[in-house]
Amino acid sequence: MAIFFNPVALEIFTDEYWMNEALKQARMAAEEGEIPVGAVIVVNNRAIARAYNQSEKLTDVTAHAEILAITAASNALGAKYLTECKMYVTLEPCIMCAGACFWAQLGELHFAASDPKRGYSNTDPGIVHPKTKVFQGPFQEESTKLIQTFFKNLRN
Amino acid sequence: MAIFFNPVALEIFTDEYWMNEALKQARMAAEEGEIPVGAVIVVNNRAIARAYNQSEKLTDVTAHAEILAITAASNALGAKYLTECKMYVTLEPCIMCAGACFWAQLGELHFAASDPKRGYSNTDPGIVHPKTKVFQGPFQEESTKLIQTFFKNLRN
Repeated sequence: MAIFFNPVALEIFTDEYWMNEALKQARMAAEEGEIPVGAVIVVNNRAIARAYNQSEKLTDVTAHAEILAITAASNALGAKYLTECKMYVTLEPCIMCAGACFWAQLGELHFAASDPKRGYSNTDPGIVHPKTKVFQGPFQEESTKLIQTFFKNLRN
Repeated sequence: MAIFFNPVALEIFTDEYWMNEALKQARMAAEEGEIPVGAVIVVNNRAIARAYNQSEKLTDVTAHAEILAITAASNALGAKYLTECKMYVTLEPCIMCAGACFWAQLGELHFAASDPKRGYSNTDPGIVHPKTKVFQGPFQEESTKLIQTFFKNLRN
């Protein structure tokens, strides 16, 4: 029986797969009382960084999921620039994090939920690097619901 | 002989003094081959954080002087918010760092040289927190010269 090369097999790790991994990170944040945002950075179908918001635990406003993930990814690669990397993050990055994506020259940015209040695109969609391809989705609803539930529980 | 209370003595640590301390940090960056930017965070006339750009050393684009200083200041105070703090930085913050200043709700931001290319005010002067008072100077020329000399040497 002939075995044929199946290029589809290489696509097993889809955007859905990686954003779901980012959602898992966000749920870990929620369990620790942090605003639930998670991020995964992927290169060549391999996750090189997974992080979630740790602003409360680290008492540090800069400890957003994206910043921690960029630092970890650069450490893993031994390189400052992440031009071949894709970041999957459950919430639209804030201005600080979009600025970090700019400096990292991130290859692709995939975010789930929009952030109409603090998302970078409200100030200027051009904050990320001109070479960075930006995609929205999947799991927009799941991410939004996770954050809404978190704040609802916080108020109760 | 009567000894009078002299309120001027309390002002011994002027903006000049602290920006000069930030310049010292910037010079340390230059000595280590980093783009020379330095920052000092002060509360009640006391420096609680001193940092310089370490992007090359740490292989991390997020390791700007301001980010490192905010993390260190929060650690020193045990508090996320830096509402009573003044940051002195030798170069106008980029968007990432201005975004960090926003989240930290920084009390005062003093910067020396403008950054016409990457300074946050080119995108939106409102990126810092509305409660943050922003001042430019002193030592604008010294800071600009330090950066120009660094890049000139780099090209040679």
